[in-house]
Amino acid sequence: MGMSAIVLGAAAGGGFPQWNCNCDVCRLAWAGDKRVRARTQASLAVSANGKRWALLNASPDLRAQIQSTAALHPGGDRRGSPIDTVVLTGAEIDQTAGLLSLRERSPFSVIATAATHAAIADNPMFAVLAADQVRRRAIAPGERFTLGDGIQAELFMVPGKLPLYLEGQDFNTAPDTASETAANVGVELTDGKARLVYVPGAAAVTPALRQRLSRADAILFDGTLFTDDEMIRTGTGAKAGRRMGHMPIEGPGGTLAALDGLSARCIFVHINNTNPILVDGSPERARVEAAGWEVAWDGMEIVL
Amino acid sequence: MGMSAIVLGAAAGGGFPQWNCNCDVCRLAWAGDKRVRARTQASLAVSANGKRWALLNASPDLRAQIQSTAALHPGGDRRGSPIDTVVLTGAEIDQTAGLLSLRERSPFSVIATAATHAAIADNPMFAVLAADQVRRRAIAPGERFTLGDGIQAELFMVPGKLPLYLEGQDFNTAPDTASETAANVGVELTDGKARLVYVPGAAAVTPALRQRLSRADAILFDGTLFTDDEMIRTGTGAKAGRRMGHMPIEGPGGTLAALDGLSARCIFVHINNTNPILVDGSPERARVEAAGWEVAWDGMEIVL
Repeated sequence: MGMSAIVLGAAAGGGFPQWNCNCDVCRLAWAGDKRVRARTQASLAVSANGKRWALLNASPDLRAQIQSTAALHPGGDRRGSPIDTVVLTGAEIDQTAGLLSLRERSPFSVIATAATHAAIADNPMFAVLAADQVRRRAIAPGERFTLGDGIQAELFMVPGKLPLYLEGQDFNTAPDTASETAANVGVELTDGKARLVYVPGAAAVTPALRQRLSRADAILFDGTLFTDDEMIRTGTGAKAGRRMGHMPIEGPGGTLAALDGLSARCIFVHINNTNPILVDGSPERARVEAAGWEVAWDGMEIVL
Repeated sequence: MGMSAIVLGAAAGGGFPQWNCNCDVCRLAWAGDKRVRARTQASLAVSANGKRWALLNASPDLRAQIQSTAALHPGGDRRGSPIDTVVLTGAEIDQTAGLLSLRERSPFSVIATAATHAAIADNPMFAVLAADQVRRRAIAPGERFTLGDGIQAELFMVPGKLPLYLEGQDFNTAPDTASETAANVGVELTDGKARLVYVPGAAAVTPALRQRLSRADAILFDGTLFTDDEMIRTGTGAKAGRRMGHMPIEGPGGTLAALDGLSARCIFVHINNTNPILVDGSPERARVEAAGWEVAWDGMEIVL
């Protein structure tokens, strides 16, 4: 078989619906409206052989994601798991808190940039991942590494920002989200034949990023907000998308424009609960589908 | 209405089934055997009016627990939640990690001992709970406090231990679990009529604890392990129950013996994935039921 990926979660931080949100889109989910389906926080499982799996990010919903994904259930031994690696694209809560659900002394590797490892190591709680069981590997952007099942991988810097909890609480200070940083990376994977690129968070598309995406067979890309002022307009937040490190889908400099004309299978992930593309039959869903994009859902499988 | 409680999660740390466990009991759950039902990690929601709710502990499964509990869904406003307080009985992962799922700038209070607040504050990630929205209240054991809906509450020390991640990784050093400490407490609640006591972790029952439980109408008590050597015998761990701060249900000095003859409705919570009381029709389930105990399940409601 070739390389395959399973979307464990397709939603942005907070998930869909979000615990404290009753926006127009969340309200449909709380009411059980058939036009929407609940989605957990963004994570992707990848494998070249269907036996050993790597997770791209460990969301707070990881325990439930493992339960609903047969390929990730433990095997015959008393203790064990098909998960042998977790690759982190940043140290945000929705990218890392799931590591706390991988306690109980099973061996696996955590691969991330030194900046991300340092942000996690500042939190004593992660000592539940016993040092004699869980191997931390710091990988620099651009440095190739191999996953347990032979997949070749590379991290690359993407315009974005530090995790919110490292910004401090001064909401008047806008961080620089235009420049690339090792605090926010994407992942490129290949089994020697197919190529998949995972970018759950991007504040902008640089020429180098566009070039990298142009050689991919499948890309899963930041679909947090449809419009930059979405959270302000829906009364759910005070910040514009780019301020949060996420470029919008629509509008000038949005993702549809910036990634127009790619040959890859293009899929939106990390979708915020306010984003109307979550609603089947919405004009915004029609807009992205007309542009050739798919909207990820929990359990979606991508076989390359 | 009187005071009511909803069991959000009935399982011990790791939940049931546990991500990396294929013990005899977990195997039934992975196989979908009808004799067992999955359980999330221990948490209790309590309310005196059905409108404002307090959570006793915030488990890593909190986001899913809120979704499956209609009483905790957000109301009419754009943003908001019926949850106005979280009371913590310790700083273990399964007691606190769910706080990270209560981010997104909604106001509520976190009530715990100073020791528990300090253990959490050591982790920069919890800064996602904005200081201008989330109020930390340090309450000493024995000090009365009032929940948002008028329930009178008190924390009390229970024999137990520090969180695992504060023990360090030296598994040869057994912590003192015989003495009471502010790092591990129980919660007593009353609406002036009924009295409920929540003790998800106890290494022993002191005379004072037995006396406190004897005046309760309902107790939810540590049901982690059926026998002290359960994890060693099942090949799932190297530690005895008491070493982990949990007295066994069966045997000399076990919970059935220590709490024999109480008039309260007695319910086991915080049940480990290896515990055979999780299996309908098992001899161990029959044993606890014959002793007058119930086995909690996710969604169980206790109306007093």
